[in-house]
Amino acid sequence: MSGNAYHVLEERFRRMAVLGECTAVLHWDAAVIMPASAAGPRGDQLAELRVVLHELLTDPAIADLLRAADPLPLDPWQAANLHEMRRQYLYADAVPGDLVAALSRASSACEATWREAKPRDDFVAVAPKLEEVLRLTREVAAAKAEALGLTPYDALMDQFEPDARQAAVDPILDDYAAFLPGFLAKVLEKQARGPEPVFPKGPFPAEAQRKLVRGLLERVGFPFEAGRMDESAHPFSTGYPGDNRITIAIKEDDPAMAVMAALHECGHALYEANLPSDWARQPVGEARGMALHESQSLMVEMQACRSPEFIGWLAPRMADALGDDPAFEPENLKRLYNHVKPDFIRVEADEVTYPAHVILRYRLEKALLSGDLAVADLPGAWDDGMEGLLGIRPPRLAQGCLQDIHWFDGAFGYFPTYTLGAMTAAQLMAAARAERPGIPQDLAEGDFAPLLDWLRRHVHSQASSRSTADLVADATGRPLDPAAFRAHLEGRYLGNG
Amino acid sequence: MSGNAYHVLEERFRRMAVLGECTAVLHWDAAVIMPASAAGPRGDQLAELRVVLHELLTDPAIADLLRAADPLPLDPWQAANLHEMRRQYLYADAVPGDLVAALSRASSACEATWREAKPRDDFVAVAPKLEEVLRLTREVAAAKAEALGLTPYDALMDQFEPDARQAAVDPILDDYAAFLPGFLAKVLEKQARGPEPVFPKGPFPAEAQRKLVRGLLERVGFPFEAGRMDESAHPFSTGYPGDNRITIAIKEDDPAMAVMAALHECGHALYEANLPSDWARQPVGEARGMALHESQSLMVEMQACRSPEFIGWLAPRMADALGDDPAFEPENLKRLYNHVKPDFIRVEADEVTYPAHVILRYRLEKALLSGDLAVADLPGAWDDGMEGLLGIRPPRLAQGCLQDIHWFDGAFGYFPTYTLGAMTAAQLMAAARAERPGIPQDLAEGDFAPLLDWLRRHVHSQASSRSTADLVADATGRPLDPAAFRAHLEGRYLGNG
Repeated sequence: MSGNAYHVLEERFRRMAVLGECTAVLHWDAAVIMPASAAGPRGDQLAELRVVLHELLTDPAIADLLRAADPLPLDPWQAANLHEMRRQYLYADAVPGDLVAALSRASSACEATWREAKPRDDFVAVAPKLEEVLRLTREVAAAKAEALGLTPYDALMDQFEPDARQAAVDPILDDYAAFLPGFLAKVLEKQARGPEPVFPKGPFPAEAQRKLVRGLLERVGFPFEAGRMDESAHPFSTGYPGDNRITIAIKEDDPAMAVMAALHECGHALYEANLPSDWARQPVGEARGMALHESQSLMVEMQACRSPEFIGWLAPRMADALGDDPAFEPENLKRLYNHVKPDFIRVEADEVTYPAHVILRYRLEKALLSGDLAVADLPGAWDDGMEGLLGIRPPRLAQGCLQDIHWFDGAFGYFPTYTLGAMTAAQLMAAARAERPGIPQDLAEGDFAPLLDWLRRHVHSQASSRSTADLVADATGRPLDPAAFRAHLEGRYLGNG
Repeated sequence: MSGNAYHVLEERFRRMAVLGECTAVLHWDAAVIMPASAAGPRGDQLAELRVVLHELLTDPAIADLLRAADPLPLDPWQAANLHEMRRQYLYADAVPGDLVAALSRASSACEATWREAKPRDDFVAVAPKLEEVLRLTREVAAAKAEALGLTPYDALMDQFEPDARQAAVDPILDDYAAFLPGFLAKVLEKQARGPEPVFPKGPFPAEAQRKLVRGLLERVGFPFEAGRMDESAHPFSTGYPGDNRITIAIKEDDPAMAVMAALHECGHALYEANLPSDWARQPVGEARGMALHESQSLMVEMQACRSPEFIGWLAPRMADALGDDPAFEPENLKRLYNHVKPDFIRVEADEVTYPAHVILRYRLEKALLSGDLAVADLPGAWDDGMEGLLGIRPPRLAQGCLQDIHWFDGAFGYFPTYTLGAMTAAQLMAAARAERPGIPQDLAEGDFAPLLDWLRRHVHSQASSRSTADLVADATGRPLDPAAFRAHLEGRYLGNG
């Protein structure tokens, strides 16, 4: 070992980051390339890398090094890096290895059962396994809460979005739940006065869609010179400096959906691609958290690409690429891309009703974890909650509490980041437009450079050097405030913003 | 830890095998998928996995476990597995980690310089780096020799082909060097009496070539149901159970070359794919060594697919796939695929002159390692050796001592496995045909099943459960004997075998 404790830690975390890159390639390969027959071995490979990473991170020497580094004179960047190292170590060290492994196994088993149970609406089949996942998740939450001095739910949420706390999230989501009914009624009333959107009539050849999407990603700024675009069942993005990968999912009968899903992923990809390359492979150089990550995908998709200005630019290009279709008339495409309709499926929801899906899950998962809601009572509670929030009752469980993978795969505390991200995006866009009033006009010309430059400066370049709260406050002049999101929705959907 | 020392070792080696699979995926991705901009990070990723594997293998606990397992009652399979575990451990433990790292760095630097020096015939640029690689290789060889009780050169060769010894290889290669001049003269004389082979006149569309090659690989037995075929600059194969990957290299003007290169790789791939699945992820379940591996690729390419019987079947199928061309007339295709011509480039050599290329490198690398030949004198020694063996002098270094990557990348002791493989293939084919006289007729009908079944039984299913020497002796009734290869060449090229 050479250098002081801090430098030794930098080298240790560099090793872990490099092994994390290996994991990213194996995940990408599993989704894009690998024959289905390799699913078992690939699971073993990813698990083994996880074990190696966990061993490296929880090596007792790390604790000694963290202690030894504490009194060292560090510059602010190093101090922030050490802070993130400590966070990662504390999280990993808080939970005994066999509990981590037990939750991982229980989640895999539950997820596999859920996959078969969902099409059959068979909640009874999956309930005992969800019970077990919950039991172990409560143990993990308790261990993390103990080690970090947080409540159990905060300890779970903090894994996905550092420093997110129920005490702050509750009022933000309650505010939206109170705002939604009146606002939704007005939107639906206004929408009913106009024509219904026309959907494109396919099939549209996959190759033409691919070319269109690739051109759009290039224009938004995806670094094709150091990356690639492929296809997978669900779009995603991954990578590390020099190797940025985005996947799209082409549907021959629904190019409009494929385009927006790709632009959404592109927002995630640009955040990763624009993280400071000098900080690569250190904890402080990583993306901050899932709420901020989602804000970047929604900035591109919802704030920029579903804006009337950009759709005006996009519409003739879709027609050029895919052939004339009444759906590609600009006014229709605006209606299509901003159509509001209370419905059952979260991933298909518009941005007005989407938070209702999140609020429902947030309330239910808190109740499941605390024990206030029994697993057996989940389907009923879901349907009641959906009726209370959006006035609709799912006709079947696959459209109700069985629709999302998260809980069945052991992800509790994740859902709120979707709506925190949407609200952050709205507030960031308001600030960007205040500083650069030309942004709507840039988007009307298909020019993302000014917006991207602003994001790079205020968000991407910050990586994990400070908290999401500080970053948002510095970028926008105030703490996260759901008013910006409400103002965005009022402007876009009632035309008075 | 549960179970006895042997079972703990099995679990340890299983972990290493799984991490080795990760390495295989990353190598494949680097050759097929990865953007060039990721070359640096990918190098780091592979190096980090190597470090993790080295740490796992040289963990002092392994030595204790090996000692504790020794007196345990083991069945023969377990005993063979323990033997292979000990071999791997002894090799890894023999060399200090910093020497391994130094050689790895020196090889990377030398290889990069060689890549630039080769097109410029610039031996002076690369000589100091080759000197450094040699110096470190000698240190590694000495350390391994000391630990294993071998000579330094044997210690290097043994890494690639276990139990290969200079004392056995010298007479085999000397025998061929003595046989070659007279035989080659007869072949060239006979060949001169017939017409010159006609080469196909391209371009032949890549898609048609792909389809042809895919169909041939299917027919030979490549497991497409658990694998895939892609393209890379140089063909190769890799994988693990459930995930068999082969790559081909299409050249629009030379489909004949692409076909045989793919069939060669298919021989390698079938060996790996047919290793016993019950033994997977244990040392005894691995392919035996590089000589035996090469015997399997040459069995498919040279013994089976360049036989007149198979070419008779192949010729009309090439014409069907690629369009009529005089080159695809059966008699011409036989001439083309068995044309003998002393030339400068090893990888393009016919099977008669190929061993001369190997003999040259074998003699030179022994002299370089022992210090009998100075690096500065390598170019002249190469040209003299080539003239002595094949009667030709390379006009430039890129066609002489700079042509192959091996030495510049630190691979000494590898070259002899090519010719040991060719000789083993000939002896295996003679034994297979003695047992199953229908094989030539099967190949004339494009049926590989009987040959493959024989190989599976006598070679693939044995994995590393015994030495190459024992395996060959059992399969063929005698030790490796260059007479079988000579008989094969006499039969094929002089028509009196």
